[in-house]
Amino acid sequence: MTCSHLNQLSNRNLFFKCENLQKTGSFKFRGACNAVSKVVSTNQKSPDRELSVVTHSSGNHAQAVSLAAQVQGVTAHIVMPSNSPAVKKEAVRSYGGLIVECEPTEQSRVATADQVAERTGATMVHPNQSPDVMAGQGTMVFEILEQVERVDAIVVPVGGGGMLSGVSVAAKKLCPHAKIYAAEPKNADDCAVSMARGELTPLPAPPVTVCDALKTSIGPHTWPIIRDHVDDVITVTEEEIKAAMRLVWERMKLVIEPSSAVGVAAVMTDRFQRLPADGHQNIVVILCGGNVDLEHLPWMR
Amino acid sequence: MTCSHLNQLSNRNLFFKCENLQKTGSFKFRGACNAVSKVVSTNQKSPDRELSVVTHSSGNHAQAVSLAAQVQGVTAHIVMPSNSPAVKKEAVRSYGGLIVECEPTEQSRVATADQVAERTGATMVHPNQSPDVMAGQGTMVFEILEQVERVDAIVVPVGGGGMLSGVSVAAKKLCPHAKIYAAEPKNADDCAVSMARGELTPLPAPPVTVCDALKTSIGPHTWPIIRDHVDDVITVTEEEIKAAMRLVWERMKLVIEPSSAVGVAAVMTDRFQRLPADGHQNIVVILCGGNVDLEHLPWMR
Repeated sequence: MTCSHLNQLSNRNLFFKCENLQKTGSFKFRGACNAVSKVVSTNQKSPDRELSVVTHSSGNHAQAVSLAAQVQGVTAHIVMPSNSPAVKKEAVRSYGGLIVECEPTEQSRVATADQVAERTGATMVHPNQSPDVMAGQGTMVFEILEQVERVDAIVVPVGGGGMLSGVSVAAKKLCPHAKIYAAEPKNADDCAVSMARGELTPLPAPPVTVCDALKTSIGPHTWPIIRDHVDDVITVTEEEIKAAMRLVWERMKLVIEPSSAVGVAAVMTDRFQRLPADGHQNIVVILCGGNVDLEHLPWMR
Repeated sequence: MTCSHLNQLSNRNLFFKCENLQKTGSFKFRGACNAVSKVVSTNQKSPDRELSVVTHSSGNHAQAVSLAAQVQGVTAHIVMPSNSPAVKKEAVRSYGGLIVECEPTEQSRVATADQVAERTGATMVHPNQSPDVMAGQGTMVFEILEQVERVDAIVVPVGGGGMLSGVSVAAKKLCPHAKIYAAEPKNADDCAVSMARGELTPLPAPPVTVCDALKTSIGPHTWPIIRDHVDDVITVTEEEIKAAMRLVWERMKLVIEPSSAVGVAAVMTDRFQRLPADGHQNIVVILCGGNVDLEHLPWMR
């Protein structure tokens, strides 16, 4: 999708890749599909075995794995903190996922998922550190190159870095001239810090940001890919994120979640504006998802 | 756009015509463009004459005429009640419209517009009773027939009836087998009452409905067209409208205004459900606009 008003504001030709319109409302369905397909194809020699996958997530990845598994006739065990909102549990159930509750700590999540894997033989599908998940997210690059004639740059929100890894690997292979910019909340800037220091530097504490989906730090599997394929990281403030989100709702009539607005905010920054027009005309901005609580919008807080 | 969840709920194949994504955020740009084009083409013999149009509207038509005029180098005088929200005045100005304030009564609107027309020689572009406006709205049927393979029915929200007239005339000519259903708020059911009585029956008093854009009654020019081309009128309650609006936001990730939700609500009614599946499989639902106050959403009232 395009928007002349946003083109004027950013002084670029912006092309929005609308992953908010993807099945389950986010790009996560791509990686989940690819990971579940791999589980199915690697077990084709034992067709009688009941296949299952497991993951720990309370967000978009949980719904994505649930539907990807349902579509392919695989059981999905979803480990969720006991204090997850009812609406998120309901979404997972509606896509056929089996919820396993755990304590609301990172340790309990991982331990519970490990237990489920051991008990059931389920294959772990990590939200962002699994190579199959990363590769799946990268499939959007094929579509982008079909949909946009000359891509000068792609702006990709980064949380755990699964999408950024998949997209940057695919893009640097398929359109090597295109620059890859990561977009990150200033309040959760582990990717920017890691790139500046030249080594993986996770956030020291849980960050405070409206972008629920970007609170995760990049990890040991995504870091080297990002280090080697991403041109730069642009960070944006919470106010910039909220303003960009509202702009997209008002002008493009698209429901996007705050994480999607990070890329929009990034192309509006002074820093991005200073990039030379030559070689930065056609900019793809990934709107990564549209799952948002309609009762509590950021501009109402 | 399509949505498998809404297909399941309605038990039909729904195809949404997304006029919320139209320039200025509603279908009104079609009619305004056609009307302004007519003004330009009928004055081609006097190229030195400064052309102008005038309309009275505080809503989507005002923005649409402003932009249509701007694009074609014509001056647009927009008569708006003095108590119109600042955001609506701002929108008109941003599209180059010249605002003329009037008292917040129907009489003052019409009188002020007449005065402007007399003073400036501007051509009146009525929001829904102008044949050029109606014809412009009908252009969406060409696109619908290109986009949907076999159209069994089109569901069209009705306020003043400009869109319903244009769409029904175009559809009955281009795809005569397709049924045309008007969708109307129960609280503003002048079209339904007129059809039942067989004569134009405007609302006796201003209606109370969340659908700002559907508060107008059908008029003397739209009534005979509607009477002769529309198969039936389906009315829906305020609760049904709000629920349908929220459903589209949540599941389709589209920002639509309440008036757009009227058609969605209509296909969910028992009455629509009782229509035979044969001949009612592929249903086009027109999402007529997406201009909504993001601070005050209906489910928050």
